[in-house]
Amino acid sequence: MKRIGKQTIEFENAPSVIGHGAVGGRKEAGGPLGADFDQTFEDTTLNTDSWEKAEAQLQKEAVAVALASAGCRAEEVDFIFAGDLLNQCISSTFGLRGYGMPYLGQYGACSTMAQTLLMAAVMVDSGAADRAAAVTSSHFCSAERQFRTPLEYGAQRTPTAQWTATASGSVIVGKGGRVRIQRALAGKIVDLGVKDPANMGAAMAPAAADSICQFLEDTHQRPQDFDGIFTGDLGAVGSQLMLDALKGEGLDLTTVHQDCGLMLYYREAQDVHAGGSGCGCSASVLCGHLLRQMEKGELKKILFCATGALMSTTSQQQGESIPGVCHIVQLEG
Amino acid sequence: MKRIGKQTIEFENAPSVIGHGAVGGRKEAGGPLGADFDQTFEDTTLNTDSWEKAEAQLQKEAVAVALASAGCRAEEVDFIFAGDLLNQCISSTFGLRGYGMPYLGQYGACSTMAQTLLMAAVMVDSGAADRAAAVTSSHFCSAERQFRTPLEYGAQRTPTAQWTATASGSVIVGKGGRVRIQRALAGKIVDLGVKDPANMGAAMAPAAADSICQFLEDTHQRPQDFDGIFTGDLGAVGSQLMLDALKGEGLDLTTVHQDCGLMLYYREAQDVHAGGSGCGCSASVLCGHLLRQMEKGELKKILFCATGALMSTTSQQQGESIPGVCHIVQLEG
Repeated sequence: MKRIGKQTIEFENAPSVIGHGAVGGRKEAGGPLGADFDQTFEDTTLNTDSWEKAEAQLQKEAVAVALASAGCRAEEVDFIFAGDLLNQCISSTFGLRGYGMPYLGQYGACSTMAQTLLMAAVMVDSGAADRAAAVTSSHFCSAERQFRTPLEYGAQRTPTAQWTATASGSVIVGKGGRVRIQRALAGKIVDLGVKDPANMGAAMAPAAADSICQFLEDTHQRPQDFDGIFTGDLGAVGSQLMLDALKGEGLDLTTVHQDCGLMLYYREAQDVHAGGSGCGCSASVLCGHLLRQMEKGELKKILFCATGALMSTTSQQQGESIPGVCHIVQLEG
Repeated sequence: MKRIGKQTIEFENAPSVIGHGAVGGRKEAGGPLGADFDQTFEDTTLNTDSWEKAEAQLQKEAVAVALASAGCRAEEVDFIFAGDLLNQCISSTFGLRGYGMPYLGQYGACSTMAQTLLMAAVMVDSGAADRAAAVTSSHFCSAERQFRTPLEYGAQRTPTAQWTATASGSVIVGKGGRVRIQRALAGKIVDLGVKDPANMGAAMAPAAADSICQFLEDTHQRPQDFDGIFTGDLGAVGSQLMLDALKGEGLDLTTVHQDCGLMLYYREAQDVHAGGSGCGCSASVLCGHLLRQMEKGELKKILFCATGALMSTTSQQQGESIPGVCHIVQLEG
């Protein structure tokens, strides 16, 4: 590994994706990427007796699929990096406790998929691991009742609000896979003072702009060098703000940018307002759709830029703004 | 870096502690290690208007001290690994957002100091970073009201309960420091079914025994090869359980083992029941007391084995048991 520019690391020993899995709920199955999920569940309780247990089960299933696609057993994975949105990251703990993998919990809110993938690649590239796993999840019902209101209230959502995906994605990183992990950037916390928890896209957009700008500068690349620059999950409002901010820096991403939150659902027909969100959104878009596209050769070189809003209900109640972060991983087929 | 045995990594490029800082509250100042803190605060609100903001401030102060002792500026730190016990790790986010360091949030409950130190060492050893920081915190008042009852209730505590430390510890890892980070182990999630949240020591002891046993086996070392094996924080109940479990494996740690939770306070006089706990407990014992002892040559070779209970109030309410984890870092002066 070596550092390039101010903030980017370049992998030198070709860590790559040797297995991946994406699982989701009924709504995700009915979206435009439904066919790219390895498994979807019509009953989003997954036969458990709570939404939190259902979310843990999603992680367990995603890792099982990823392990199977890598053709390896849990005991052959040297580290698992996992995280989610629930308090104390319980979806990860309870979903993964049965696997017996050395466990390093991560918290990056909705940026967690990029963070766990970055860390897994670091471990493999450095020789600390032969194989390392990354996984994250979210569940609409567990997130709503923890962060917003009980589902039974039937609260109205604002047009800027995003829909937390019921989904999980997992990657097994090793050597010899078809998609290589080439570079990565860990983002800084960026806080421009947005306080509206129903407009997370706006809160995270400045961090996305900051990280993407820095990454392109560090690596001397231009937006058009990529087949796609995928943010996750800025939604409609945040995406536009990010594009505007980058235009101010002389970077035009309009032709290469897509947002995982805008890819996962039929926005109007599925009534998701500004788009999808949640750790599981960008995770399942990456692990289901994007990696499949790369393996088919339909995408060659992409940036996966996952964004997170680092707030809690307590910080909101105490009048704090919503700090954002964006971590980036460069993948090449 | 290379893997040794089943689960241990060995650093090959001599990452070391180039700076450290420990800050604490009034109770910690009055304990046996009070003189080893870099700074303590008589007013544990730290002039903020909430306990959560006070805890964030503790992290900010600990990092400031660590940076000063390393003689470097925030901009010279390539990554910061940080975590805490609060929902969505807000002490870390809000405490560190002003530093502008690339930020990777960690969640390992009270094991977070070992986890962040392990990650920082990985980054420096692999060449991904010249300098990387590790920090974690806890605050008695923010933890009590989040995990247990409002302080105003004056709830009685059981004899097995531990006292969450109001403290934070930070390390700057780089090259050329006096204390080297030699090896590390990321623990597995171990869950033997303990369900009592007022007896975290019992819940975490099996994980500590599992990790220590594996580490000694992987590295072909014996307990007496160390000047100290420091767990954090099993307290009185958990420590005894761990010693008993290891004795069953033919390992006698009685002469070298100490627990950070039993070192931080005068247990009887300060009425902490089974001992201290919280991310800030083992962090401040390491960053205040132990690293000072190592720099003075009073301790040469130690294991720092931080333990975490990976539960939440929600998992408790849903009848789940309390999974434990224990991460280990081997340090040598």
